[in-house]
Amino acid sequence: MPKVSVSEAQELRVGPNFQLDDVDPKATPGLVGSDDVDKAFHVYDDDLDELQEMLYANGRADNEQAGSVLLVLQGMDTSGKGGIVRHVIGETMDLQGVHVKAFGRPTEEEAAHDFLWRFEPHLPKPGQIAVFDRSHYEDVLVQRVKQMAPPEEIERRYGAIVDFETELAARGTKIIKVMPHISRDYQAENLRKRITNPKKHWKYNPGDIDDRKLWSQYMAAYQIAMTRTSTDVAPWYCIPSDNKKYCRTVVKTLLYDALKSLGNEWPAPDFDPDVELARLAQS
Amino acid sequence: MPKVSVSEAQELRVGPNFQLDDVDPKATPGLVGSDDVDKAFHVYDDDLDELQEMLYANGRADNEQAGSVLLVLQGMDTSGKGGIVRHVIGETMDLQGVHVKAFGRPTEEEAAHDFLWRFEPHLPKPGQIAVFDRSHYEDVLVQRVKQMAPPEEIERRYGAIVDFETELAARGTKIIKVMPHISRDYQAENLRKRITNPKKHWKYNPGDIDDRKLWSQYMAAYQIAMTRTSTDVAPWYCIPSDNKKYCRTVVKTLLYDALKSLGNEWPAPDFDPDVELARLAQS
Repeated sequence: MPKVSVSEAQELRVGPNFQLDDVDPKATPGLVGSDDVDKAFHVYDDDLDELQEMLYANGRADNEQAGSVLLVLQGMDTSGKGGIVRHVIGETMDLQGVHVKAFGRPTEEEAAHDFLWRFEPHLPKPGQIAVFDRSHYEDVLVQRVKQMAPPEEIERRYGAIVDFETELAARGTKIIKVMPHISRDYQAENLRKRITNPKKHWKYNPGDIDDRKLWSQYMAAYQIAMTRTSTDVAPWYCIPSDNKKYCRTVVKTLLYDALKSLGNEWPAPDFDPDVELARLAQS
Repeated sequence: MPKVSVSEAQELRVGPNFQLDDVDPKATPGLVGSDDVDKAFHVYDDDLDELQEMLYANGRADNEQAGSVLLVLQGMDTSGKGGIVRHVIGETMDLQGVHVKAFGRPTEEEAAHDFLWRFEPHLPKPGQIAVFDRSHYEDVLVQRVKQMAPPEEIERRYGAIVDFETELAARGTKIIKVMPHISRDYQAENLRKRITNPKKHWKYNPGDIDDRKLWSQYMAAYQIAMTRTSTDVAPWYCIPSDNKKYCRTVVKTLLYDALKSLGNEWPAPDFDPDVELARLAQS
């Protein structure tokens, strides 16, 4: 059965010598045949199902060691962040243990606080998986590209992010940061669909073209942000995503790996099964 | 293709002459063949997908008339509430437009307020679907059966609930209240699995047997609650659920009907497609 293995997925990890320019958005590393991705997409479904339920069960059982997962999705418009939420998270996870939060422009109150303040309430509790659709990286991406903060403040933020994530990891959260990487051509195709298909109009914003014109500046900002904040405890993965199902397949593998590494077991019962079976028989 | 049609699902609506005793939990009204339910389960998937996206799109477009949906799930232990959340909501809806809230025992602060207070923050916003896994009906079910509130307070609550739901409906929320109705035998089978299977231990609570011993009192409380609060704008549906997939199929049909009745269309674009195509071409 074709799949993207854990080690293949880990190949996409951003290391110190990472060059975004070297990543081909059309590639599908680990998969060869054209229908491989359809098969590979479901390989980890049962494991994800069980591992997430186990995580949630440990959270419910107040196991302080249950741990949690934070999946950060940060990519250009139409790169498939929403599709990951829908088809990876929605289709394989139990919503009761999942918290999805899409971050837009900060409110006035949020903007008055340190940039990390608004993310705190949405961090995963023990037993939970939290998904950030856009994230604290907006503050070193769009804010850098559009010069919405002074250069020295942007500089400060890389370190602040590393500290924030290191602290979070120390509290037991596995962090996976994903950039679904699409080509400029593929984005044009996607935007064209949003502009011409009335069912997709609601997803289109004329500002998307303004951002598109700043493509190379954005890529430079991603390059810097990812290399400066990809750490052992909070690695970035740059996933080729012109084939969106490939990207979703890799995200499943990464989630599988993260959940597995939490090392949870099914919680021991806080009751005596024999006693309860007897009570059931008499009820 | 076998399906549970809207009119068949509506047959399960609780009317003034409803008798819970007359509902056979093993029945599958509308379906005959043993594999009918597997086919019927997916009949409305594409419609649900589109209708929910349309609802969400209208919410995003600040359409005050977008409306919303509240699905209330209230049933005995092991009746399949969690499975509905997972397999109906999770698998067909976009999580971004969905808010699932499981209600447990009220906190001290919540208990100090009127019983309806804690539900307000979880009501759906325009464009959203909210799902209550247990609900304000706990206050006239467990609280009645276990005499946790004086009889006159319980009495008062039926009217308060009707007023609360009528007001909510007037603000544009379609309300669907579902009791997945299982037999006492089927519950015993489910509890046995939870007691004996280590993967299911976390779902078991010795208190479940205490509730089970009060089965007939609970059924009486459901009978009263459902007949007194099943209104045109907030109807109850008592769904035979010993076949859990049948129950989930009916819930899909009811959600389809509710979403359809909101009468949304795709929001008109707030941009000129020709202008944007030209901008795209130049970008």
